[in-house]
Amino acid sequence: MVIVMEDNATESMIIAVSERLEKFGFQVHRVNGVNRTILGAIGDKRGIDIRGFELAEGVHEVLRITEPYKLAGRTFHPENTVVTVKDAVLGSEKITVMAGPCSIESEQQLFHIAREVRTAGAKILRGGAFKPRTSPYSFQGLGVEGLKLLKQAGEEFGLATISEVMEISQVNLMLDYVDIFQVGARNMQNFSLLRELGKIKKPVMIKRGMAATIEELLMAAEYVMAGGNYNVILCERGIRTFENYTRNTLDISAIPVTHKLSHLPIIADPSHGTGLRDKVGPMARAAVAAGADGLMIEVHHEPEQALSDGAQSLYPQQFLRLMEELRMIAWAIGRELN
Amino acid sequence: MVIVMEDNATESMIIAVSERLEKFGFQVHRVNGVNRTILGAIGDKRGIDIRGFELAEGVHEVLRITEPYKLAGRTFHPENTVVTVKDAVLGSEKITVMAGPCSIESEQQLFHIAREVRTAGAKILRGGAFKPRTSPYSFQGLGVEGLKLLKQAGEEFGLATISEVMEISQVNLMLDYVDIFQVGARNMQNFSLLRELGKIKKPVMIKRGMAATIEELLMAAEYVMAGGNYNVILCERGIRTFENYTRNTLDISAIPVTHKLSHLPIIADPSHGTGLRDKVGPMARAAVAAGADGLMIEVHHEPEQALSDGAQSLYPQQFLRLMEELRMIAWAIGRELN
Amino acid sequence: MVIVMEDNATESMIIAVSERLEKFGFQVHRVNGVNRTILGAIGDKRGIDIRGFELAEGVHEVLRITEPYKLAGRTFHPENTVVTVKDAVLGSEKITVMAGPCSIESEQQLFHIAREVRTAGAKILRGGAFKPRTSPYSFQGLGVEGLKLLKQAGEEFGLATISEVMEISQVNLMLDYVDIFQVGARNMQNFSLLRELGKIKKPVMIKRGMAATIEELLMAAEYVMAGGNYNVILCERGIRTFENYTRNTLDISAIPVTHKLSHLPIIADPSHGTGLRDKVGPMARAAVAAGADGLMIEVHHEPEQALSDGAQSLYPQQFLRLMEELRMIAWAIGRELN
Amino acid sequence: MVIVMEDNATESMIIAVSERLEKFGFQVHRVNGVNRTILGAIGDKRGIDIRGFELAEGVHEVLRITEPYKLAGRTFHPENTVVTVKDAVLGSEKITVMAGPCSIESEQQLFHIAREVRTAGAKILRGGAFKPRTSPYSFQGLGVEGLKLLKQAGEEFGLATISEVMEISQVNLMLDYVDIFQVGARNMQNFSLLRELGKIKKPVMIKRGMAATIEELLMAAEYVMAGGNYNVILCERGIRTFENYTRNTLDISAIPVTHKLSHLPIIADPSHGTGLRDKVGPMARAAVAAGADGLMIEVHHEPEQALSDGAQSLYPQQFLRLMEELRMIAWAIGRELN
Repeated sequence: MVIVMEDNATESMIIAVSERLEKFGFQVHRVNGVNRTILGAIGDKRGIDIRGFELAEGVHEVLRITEPYKLAGRTFHPENTVVTVKDAVLGSEKITVMAGPCSIESEQQLFHIAREVRTAGAKILRGGAFKPRTSPYSFQGLGVEGLKLLKQAGEEFGLATISEVMEISQVNLMLDYVDIFQVGARNMQNFSLLRELGKIKKPVMIKRGMAATIEELLMAAEYVMAGGNYNVILCERGIRTFENYTRNTLDISAIPVTHKLSHLPIIADPSHGTGLRDKVGPMARAAVAAGADGLMIEVHHEPEQALSDGAQSLYPQQFLRLMEELRMIAWAIGRELN
Repeated sequence: MVIVMEDNATESMIIAVSERLEKFGFQVHRVNGVNRTILGAIGDKRGIDIRGFELAEGVHEVLRITEPYKLAGRTFHPENTVVTVKDAVLGSEKITVMAGPCSIESEQQLFHIAREVRTAGAKILRGGAFKPRTSPYSFQGLGVEGLKLLKQAGEEFGLATISEVMEISQVNLMLDYVDIFQVGARNMQNFSLLRELGKIKKPVMIKRGMAATIEELLMAAEYVMAGGNYNVILCERGIRTFENYTRNTLDISAIPVTHKLSHLPIIADPSHGTGLRDKVGPMARAAVAAGADGLMIEVHHEPEQALSDGAQSLYPQQFLRLMEELRMIAWAIGRELN
Repeated sequence: MVIVMEDNATESMIIAVSERLEKFGFQVHRVNGVNRTILGAIGDKRGIDIRGFELAEGVHEVLRITEPYKLAGRTFHPENTVVTVKDAVLGSEKITVMAGPCSIESEQQLFHIAREVRTAGAKILRGGAFKPRTSPYSFQGLGVEGLKLLKQAGEEFGLATISEVMEISQVNLMLDYVDIFQVGARNMQNFSLLRELGKIKKPVMIKRGMAATIEELLMAAEYVMAGGNYNVILCERGIRTFENYTRNTLDISAIPVTHKLSHLPIIADPSHGTGLRDKVGPMARAAVAAGADGLMIEVHHEPEQALSDGAQSLYPQQFLRLMEELRMIAWAIGRELN
Repeated sequence: MVIVMEDNATESMIIAVSERLEKFGFQVHRVNGVNRTILGAIGDKRGIDIRGFELAEGVHEVLRITEPYKLAGRTFHPENTVVTVKDAVLGSEKITVMAGPCSIESEQQLFHIAREVRTAGAKILRGGAFKPRTSPYSFQGLGVEGLKLLKQAGEEFGLATISEVMEISQVNLMLDYVDIFQVGARNMQNFSLLRELGKIKKPVMIKRGMAATIEELLMAAEYVMAGGNYNVILCERGIRTFENYTRNTLDISAIPVTHKLSHLPIIADPSHGTGLRDKVGPMARAAVAAGADGLMIEVHHEPEQALSDGAQSLYPQQFLRLMEELRMIAWAIGRELN
């Protein structure tokens, strides 16, 4: 932490701040500048609210110099984390695609789609059983029945499975049915849920909240990892900006940024990131070109009948063509579609 | 819902869309414009994903004409909802202030602050027992012990109490201790929690999420109300923007906008909205001047020792002076500080 | 400037960065932390692109410790700047209101409105002659004819005048007609225009750009002041956020923040900040309650006939009532409506 | 335009709005819904401020159904506009890269870089002569001397040239030296400048403003085109969001969205879009994968000595490698690097 004093800070103010820093256990180094005195506070004190120093008398600004995350950061863990589930691998040079319907609607629907995405090359089957809906009047998911279908479809087609967990009481329940637990964007800072997911052994994929900084996404991962579960996958799915043509603004640059800051795999979700079927392909290609370790894509054979998110679901044929393009783009940047 | 067709939409495309609308139960009115055909779809179908029509062939744009909320809206409930708890009243011409520490830290701390805020005119005592912290390494609250202290302090000083609920399992537990349940900004779209709070009878205060539109805030209220609990209070606490001098941007205009759209009381939280003690006063005054039904303000007698949010907590003396100013501003706009 | 080195930065990397800092004229102080080395670079080098150091080998982060503005900042100019034009005064304990139509449309229109706003207590008459319109097909203003009318109306009713300048060629032209030059939000970073306005002696009011930080607003003021014109007024008029119910989000907190950082007067424009007539009153009251030195408000006697911005213009009667409320709020916070 | 009336709008209110619409020249179609009456207003009235109807008595909402741009839109001009300058072509299946230094600093510097980027395959040489700098104390460009060097370098290496125009007085001056006029993000809504550029015959490239919607970018193009100059190129260069790790958030999805709405070519500027050299490559690849018609990339052989934007400039070797990757990605999506 670096504390910049005001130009007109008196000697006694400077001493008061120094002493307070020392009380918190910091070692203090003082630098007298032309106009301003700077105090360098040395010591690893994660969890301290630095704003507490901002309003002390004579203080101009407080600058943090250590990231608040440790387990999720690359500093102490330079090599990539590789998460492996059945045929899927995330974090290596291979790029893995998760695909499937937004919501699990019926056995017929899920098995039909599972077969199509498997044929096209997906390695993980997605499907929502508990649905976070903005409106209490919308379809809320099939619940446990949906999870059972997901497990069966995964076994039938040799696909790993992923589904969203919305509350603590669902964690144990889902353990029997899914291979990867998904934390939705709206729950990214549901700290109670994150803490609970730190206790399980299955991989957890955390979607970036719509207003979350990349640092906050890494802090969400830190919550899970601090509980002992290191199998964390990150997912960029669009942030909220003033531009409303697309449902969200998929922040493609979060991919290379996260790779620099963290050793965890990061994938992109162009379906939720755009909300529009005809934008999914271009953004999926962009994410792979920018270095994403994988993708999550919604596919539906009858999107106009889908109970949720039909507007952003690809037809199986579109998905098949997209996978071909992704294969070539992966190759162009020295990687390989799994 | 209004469907605007493309300029070059063919007659068969227009018919196809019309028929699909009718299949969903809408009554369709067709208007042939100079360049474009418009289809007016009449019928009250909340919960339908209108984007499903956006990608149909020949469709240019789909415009929603009904708000997705019903119980929270003013249309069918023109008069204000007034929430009354002990001496506190929210939604009338009276303005009620909630105050207290960010976290409950000890009996001594809480009782000291409770006495001060009571003297200054607050009617509701706030205090966090379960704390949502960005870092897993930060102080997480006293838990049930904190709730017990809160209840005792409320009784001792004749104050109603409010505290944040973070997960479903805490709902029953808290019923014995708090008068108002607070849903934090990060849980505004924790739909499982909202649904659970629809089953209780005590008032629920929902804070606007950092990336939530006003409409989404009203939809969160709708979740609670759809469960049968109509005692909902809304709280503006700052949204995330590109401006980072303040921790968030307190959206004062949300106050008059919400009053127009909804019958529910709305208060402002200038402490979290700014994150800086010296900005709390100006923004508290602004919120009352703009028509807020109440305020939530963090007060601490030793903010530099506070375990959380000390930087944005007012000293009791500052709070006392602020209440005097608020009293005059309330009077200037024809209202009264409770 | 403070340079934080990576944990694994080698001694030679640290030395290389130190030497480069010295080459730029900085005096370097080195602090060896537990994990990281920090380099404090002392010296006043405004205009250096600090990002140049961010990509040097071994550098983790570069932190600026001096504001990039000097003339606009409060550090070297602690007392308020007071701008006085005729009866108007901005920056003292008095609060001055500017009012008038969005566009000057005719003598009849302007004189009618000028009389009304004068009666209600406005001290400055606003009126656009050159209009920045998003669409090339919209009304673009009366030009010089409008300026002549503005001058006449100002003289007739004893009001100072303000109008927007859109390009360098208009500066000399307008000198004869207006008392205050307004720079619109879309031109806040039109540096050529700002530089030109630094050469004149009349006050310049700069509106904050829709995506401009408060620091960038102060840098725009710095451009004008660096040219020798110290009569600068700042104006908060709303920033762009994801919330679209209002046209912009009026950032009321910018008022106390600017007062802390700068000695220049700051006013608010609730008309453009909200875009909706029924929100102008609440936000005008909020701005004054938060400490604004003045307001700019659009008034029109026949807003439904206005050639621009009728939807956000107050009727004269509404303006009159608002001025009464503002008078009381000013008094509540120890100030006075001019 | 569609006008949605309030549930409780009286017959006389509905008639009043209908009559007002007819007065403006609209043909009105009335649809009586279950709760609400809808008025469809038929007629092409670009330039009308629809908010004027929003505050009429009984009106709930006004929905626009026609885009405000005409010349820039794809509706009346379905085929792509192709802009050709020397060897460069923008808008066809070929992808053209513009490259060069941020600022022109000297003959030696510019010629060195021009040779390198030509070798790597760039077809257009960029270089700033008039620099828009946030600080008045920063390097402001070489001016006309810079333009002369740019022209010479273009001729020497067979490259078309592009440079930024900052004010009207520079337009005629620059006509002799540059092939493409660049309008910077901060001038995207400098309508006076745009109007002036509508009078010339050389292509104009408009950068999206940091807070500009895609629609506003198209309206800026409309300004130039309304003057008779149809050679307009659009450029996505990053928007401002709450995420501050990158300088801006490059909105890759703007590329497919613009292609749908407009026939104009769109390129991306990953240098300004990220502000960080190590993010330029991934984002350049992403832009091409998403369908960009070209790129603008800053290259400098000694970025650590650059007078501006060194931190985001690629070394010539990095640029060369990137061009190889882009060539393969272009091929993967059925296009070709020019």
